[in-house]
Formats: sequence, C-alpha cells, structure tokens
Amino acid sequence: MSTNRTDVRRLAQRGSNDRNAAYEILDAAMVAHVGIVDEDFPVVIPMLCARDGDHLLLHGSSRSRLMRNLAEGCNACVTVTLIDSLVLARSTFNHSANYRSLVVFGNARALRKLEAKRAALEKFVEHLLPGRSADARPGNAGELKATLIVAMPIDEFSVKARSGPPVDKRTDMDLPVWAGELPIITRFGTPIAAPELADATDVPDYIKSLFPHA
Amino acid sequence: MSTNRTDVRRLAQRGSNDRNAAYEILDAAMVAHVGIVDEDFPVVIPMLCARDGDHLLLHGSSRSRLMRNLAEGCNACVTVTLIDSLVLARSTFNHSANYRSLVVFGNARALRKLEAKRAALEKFVEHLLPGRSADARPGNAGELKATLIVAMPIDEFSVKARSGPPVDKRTDMDLPVWAGELPIITRFGTPIAAPELADATDVPDYIKSLFPHA
Repeated sequence: MSTNRTDVRRLAQRGSNDRNAAYEILDAAMVAHVGIVDEDFPVVIPMLCARDGDHLLLHGSSRSRLMRNLAEGCNACVTVTLIDSLVLARSTFNHSANYRSLVVFGNARALRKLEAKRAALEKFVEHLLPGRSADARPGNAGELKATLIVAMPIDEFSVKARSGPPVDKRTDMDLPVWAGELPIITRFGTPIAAPELADATDVPDYIKSLFPHA
Repeated sequence: MSTNRTDVRRLAQRGSNDRNAAYEILDAAMVAHVGIVDEDFPVVIPMLCARDGDHLLLHGSSRSRLMRNLAEGCNACVTVTLIDSLVLARSTFNHSANYRSLVVFGNARALRKLEAKRAALEKFVEHLLPGRSADARPGNAGELKATLIVAMPIDEFSVKARSGPPVDKRTDMDLPVWAGELPIITRFGTPIAAPELADATDVPDYIKSLFPHA
C-alpha cells in the first residue's frame, strides 16, 4: 500500500512498495529503530525485531513506557536498515552508501493470549538464530505476562535501496582517484560460552553451522 | 546533560550520560536513525552521520523534506546503535543482545557558509574512511549549495549499553542448553573497483590498511 505519507518521504527513483523486498530486508535485520511521538518530540529507540507473516513484531518489558505506548496503538514508524557497502566516488560530493531500508508506518496492537505471546517470543529467537527455539526453555506464564509483544501490520511501507558503483560527473572520470565499492560484511564471531556453563554442554549444530569453514 | 525526557526513556541500570561513551559510539557508527514528527506521525529515516566536536552532523539533498525540516530546527531525535553480540540464555525469555546505543534529542541548525559546509562534507568522508578526504576531489560551490548539512548539539543525550554473558534464572542453570555470547563482527570486504576506473589507479594505502592480513 502506498499513501501520501510514504510517497512524500521517498526519493522517487529509490523507492518501491514491493512486499517481497520488504520481507527480505526485515528477515535479514536484527535491529529495528522504532519511532513514536511523545509530547511533540520524536523518540527513536532500537529494538530487536521479527516477522510473523504480514506483521512486524516488537517486544519489551511491560514496564517500558515505549512498549506501553505501542501496545496502546500510538502512531509509530519502524525502520530497518541494512548497509551493504560504502560507495567511494572520485569527488567527495558523490560519495554514497549502498543500502536497503524498510520504513513501516502504522499502529501496532498488543498480543494478549499467552499462546500467541509464546509463539511470538519463539519467532524472535528463531529470527536471530534458526534452531534455537527448539533448544532453549520456552517462556512460562509469569515470563510471558512480564513481556509486552506488539504486532504492527506491514501495510503502509516504503522500501528504498541503492546498489552498484559510484556515479561520478563526466568531468571527474579522469581524476587519479580510486573509485569503487567497499563492501561491509557482517558475520558471527567465535561463540563465547557462559562462565557457568556445564562442561558437558556442547556447542549445538545450529550454531556450528554458522561457521562452515571453522 | 540529563533531562526528564532522557531520564524517562532509559532503563536506569543501562543508562548513562557519559559524554566520552557517547562520542565513542557515534565515532564507530556509520548510520544514524533520524526521527522527526510530521503531522502527529513519527518519521524515522536512516542517514550517514559524522561528528564535529560536540555536534552530530547530518547531510542530504536540499530537496529532501526531512533535511529541510531539520534545517529549520524541528524537534529531532537521532539514534545510533551498535550491536556487539547475541546473548543466548538457557531460557527463551532471557535471550538478549549486547549493544551500545546513543540517543540525542534536540534541534539542529543548518550550516550556511560554504567553507563550513566543505569542512563538514570532509568530516563525513573522513568519518567513514580515514584518509579519503585528502584523495577525493573536494566539493565545489554548486555541489555545496545542493547539499543541506545540519549540526545537532550533543547536549541532551542518553547512552545505553549491555555487555557480558546471559543472565539466567538459578533454576535454569542446570538445563542442558548451550548458553553464551555470539559475537557480531562487522568488517570491510574486498574492494570492488568502479567499472570505468583507469587501469593505472591503484587501491590507495588508506584502503589497503583496512586489510592488514590480506
């Protein structure tokens, strides 16, 4: 869906409302930046994110004012950004970054039923580390009550992206300046066992599989 | 500086107003998420960021509505987040992330003088890739006029961070579940030369130095 709000915001040549592109960005992201309005001031807070079908999931403590506002359906903007590379042009002005971003506007609703909350918490864990939710102990009733989980429809959204080499002015093309892309790679490092972990607890396969060449 | 707005937002045990910590986070970040309010709705947009002393710098096209609002001194919130690791607890509920984040509230002002704008553009390039600003062609008058650059005082801000191993309930400590930290490492990949780059243009030393073991 495209509305005036999303249309206004995007550079026409970089925007799209491709739902699959939106899901791809969200599924590859760990963190969303969540904006709300508090007495005429914007507040932007980082939160872990996940996706359940056509909804974006956020969670936090029931004591968090931001979460309580979201649960009450306040106006919200959730933005997810993946940086793919620095784009080095021959001129300072034409430097850029290759990126993919998703901006979702709307109003979330709180999940109330314990079973829905338990399933959502597992979505978060599974989103960050596939295989983990079958291993860790699931949330119990007390823990689920202490957690606010909200679902925001991925309905009014905008996808923006830049890819490819730098674009320099014709008159800059012969400058003796290296130009190109400097990829930014994010990967997992060697797992660090918790200090009180029982000796017999092996690193599970779903973590080992993150390091195919180790 | 600490105000009610920043106090309200932070979990007491994770918050601080340490200026050096704020600078360290900002200096290590590539992207900030910038929030403004537009007709009662929050709008959160990713932007490259830089720092000039005790000010945070943002830039964009003079045609961008967000940039024009920032230049007019609208209420703004700029948030920078670094994710250091996933924190895997024995229970789903106690999963977390190690991170460092900086939230700055305030009102920016536009840089007007060409010389100040040129210096600020170089701060951006230098922030992302030290050494680059002495190599690439500096901005000319026309380019600087097409760019809005705003400086936001790092005055009303909040730093939050989590570090260290998972914290599990005592009753979960003997579960046969691997627990610990999964570091998230961000690094540069092999540079990709622009397709029309002259053959004689070598990768400069300030880029080679990013790959000490290559």
